[in-house]
Amino acid sequence: MRILIAGADGYLGWTLLQHLAARGHEVAGVDSGARRRWVAEMGSTSAIPIASAPERLEAFAERYGRQPQWWTEDLRDLDAVRGTVAEWLPDAVVHLGECPSAPYSMIDAQHAIDVQVNNVVGTFALLAAIREHCPDAHLVKLGTMGEYGTPNVPIPEGFFDIEYRGRRDTLPFPRQAGSWYHWSKVHGSNNIMFACRLWGLRATDVMQGVVFGTRADTTSDDPRLRTRLDFDQAFGTAVNRYCCQAVIGHPLTPFGAGHQKRGFLPLRDSMRCLTLALEHEPEAGEYRVFNQFQRVYDLSEFAELVRAAAHDMGLEAEVRHVENPRVEAEDHYYEPDHQHLFDLGYAPTLDIPGEIRTMLEDLLPHRDRIERHRDVLLPDVRWNGQRRAVRYLAPADADTP
Amino acid sequence: MRILIAGADGYLGWTLLQHLAARGHEVAGVDSGARRRWVAEMGSTSAIPIASAPERLEAFAERYGRQPQWWTEDLRDLDAVRGTVAEWLPDAVVHLGECPSAPYSMIDAQHAIDVQVNNVVGTFALLAAIREHCPDAHLVKLGTMGEYGTPNVPIPEGFFDIEYRGRRDTLPFPRQAGSWYHWSKVHGSNNIMFACRLWGLRATDVMQGVVFGTRADTTSDDPRLRTRLDFDQAFGTAVNRYCCQAVIGHPLTPFGAGHQKRGFLPLRDSMRCLTLALEHEPEAGEYRVFNQFQRVYDLSEFAELVRAAAHDMGLEAEVRHVENPRVEAEDHYYEPDHQHLFDLGYAPTLDIPGEIRTMLEDLLPHRDRIERHRDVLLPDVRWNGQRRAVRYLAPADADTP
Repeated sequence: MRILIAGADGYLGWTLLQHLAARGHEVAGVDSGARRRWVAEMGSTSAIPIASAPERLEAFAERYGRQPQWWTEDLRDLDAVRGTVAEWLPDAVVHLGECPSAPYSMIDAQHAIDVQVNNVVGTFALLAAIREHCPDAHLVKLGTMGEYGTPNVPIPEGFFDIEYRGRRDTLPFPRQAGSWYHWSKVHGSNNIMFACRLWGLRATDVMQGVVFGTRADTTSDDPRLRTRLDFDQAFGTAVNRYCCQAVIGHPLTPFGAGHQKRGFLPLRDSMRCLTLALEHEPEAGEYRVFNQFQRVYDLSEFAELVRAAAHDMGLEAEVRHVENPRVEAEDHYYEPDHQHLFDLGYAPTLDIPGEIRTMLEDLLPHRDRIERHRDVLLPDVRWNGQRRAVRYLAPADADTP
Repeated sequence: MRILIAGADGYLGWTLLQHLAARGHEVAGVDSGARRRWVAEMGSTSAIPIASAPERLEAFAERYGRQPQWWTEDLRDLDAVRGTVAEWLPDAVVHLGECPSAPYSMIDAQHAIDVQVNNVVGTFALLAAIREHCPDAHLVKLGTMGEYGTPNVPIPEGFFDIEYRGRRDTLPFPRQAGSWYHWSKVHGSNNIMFACRLWGLRATDVMQGVVFGTRADTTSDDPRLRTRLDFDQAFGTAVNRYCCQAVIGHPLTPFGAGHQKRGFLPLRDSMRCLTLALEHEPEAGEYRVFNQFQRVYDLSEFAELVRAAAHDMGLEAEVRHVENPRVEAEDHYYEPDHQHLFDLGYAPTLDIPGEIRTMLEDLLPHRDRIERHRDVLLPDVRWNGQRRAVRYLAPADADTP
């Protein structure tokens, strides 16, 4: 299959490019390098050193036989995107090329606008280019479980059958996102749903949980081929941040009470799931939604998993709750479905402690890099608009056992 | 009350500025003049001649005692919007400053992007400026009934209580818009809902039906104070277009079968409703949704009302259905609530034929202007992306009685 990956220089994108090549697909990438710039803006860097894009492509060629076709371009540039899609004529497009950070979008009004415009326009440009040049191509779009928020009813996969005042319909499940970034994903999902109805495109909208990990099933030991691993407040996801904290003996810091429940999945599972979506495409005109995660954990539970795995390796780090910089429910019902991917054969990683151990082993050689950026481990971007570092909570406040 | 109207040079905005001044409010306006440029781009002009913005302000001063404060600026310019809001410090902001056209957004991909960016960014800039400078101010935002689409269940006002798999919650009612423009309004509604939750702002999101008419209760006969009336395919709404067709003896042209049901309301009712919303503000942090229309009509029914009113004035115009350029259900269930405004005292116009007669009388002196732009009365922007004038349907296709 000819596959175009948008955001191919990112955490997921660079991993997926290799994973799909290893499976024999013809892959190409688009990336503007924005992720590297955004992380630098946060005063941080990848914990695992990464090669430049040209070095990456050279190493890719050594391992997979040839360089992937590659475009350095911004998805907001409609004509550039049209040109790329027209040139590569993909069977499928995987769209990982958005700004993926809630805190980044909450820095101030201009960042909120930039994230929403970046994500809405980039997604629209891909939709338009697909329609004009390869309308049969399958768009696999990375959304987020955060689009749903935390309703008091089970969360279906995209749509639900309801009875209301004695009549029935199947409707899109309402979204209640919790940051300007998460809303940008909702805006994109809505546009994709409409593009499928209007233009007959086929799309899989992936409501992904929180990803963690340093490896996919196909990850090579060539350091030029390793993907990034962020630990700053904006681009470091919870478990990746916990692991970076653990390797330098910094407290692991769940936000607030830490009872927030979220779907999580290892990086290798994300790759398996995206591959399943790609290799089982929907019908023309079909807009399908996959909730993509291994299982639901709460934030404290995962901090404890990381603490224990680190302890077994002789790394001592306590769990200390910090003020919650976000506006979110800390005690809530959460029961999302995630059956569609299991129906396609998703085999989830079951040894989560083993996965964490691998991460810690991968991170240990780079503890100095993390130590040098120690000050980015605690958030100061608050949902109330103030920029002020969070404090540690007393154990009673944190309601830990 | 100190009120800032965004989009104050438009069809609703210019009418509302005067209506609120007549009620004794202190009013100010922001407008970039975009509506005049967009209509010119469609090859059209207002059927009723309108004065330039400076002439309008001078006439306003003669009638209401002083010129309203006025800023010629683009709402996408965050710093400009901040400056305006900081200077005027309104008690309420009425946001009518969006691109209001579904067909305009469907011209091509670039127009779709421009409409979504214009509407999302402009709304966000107003939210941010209110929060920074007058967080108690009430935002009244013009949305559209088109955000809901045509679900097979009744349409509540914004939120609904549901039972799903044995659990209960109150959730935002799902939106299923039918054009890139309508989706831009959904994106805006979602952002406003979140701003109220996050920042404690207060907002009324008005899901307005299709407006028609040339006058509000306060409309003056000074020609410099008249508001615009568009009849081109993009900015002319259905009834306004029918009336312009009738005065030049052009067939009245419902799209397709013409059984599409929509909420409609006269311009004067829109002004009454917006005034009620302004004079009964929600609590801090409250996001409330009003479905704003007089009643539901189908498109053929309204064409027949216009035909009959024209006939009574000696104007003969037949109803002839044309191909439907849109992708939409032509036979569907439609039962939207609209109780909130009645609860506040909304007294709807009951004499709709009389309202149409007034419009036709207002338009008759300008039949030459309409005749000169006769070619803009039939649409050529199709939802399938082709630009090709619609044809008349044979009576059997149109399923007319």
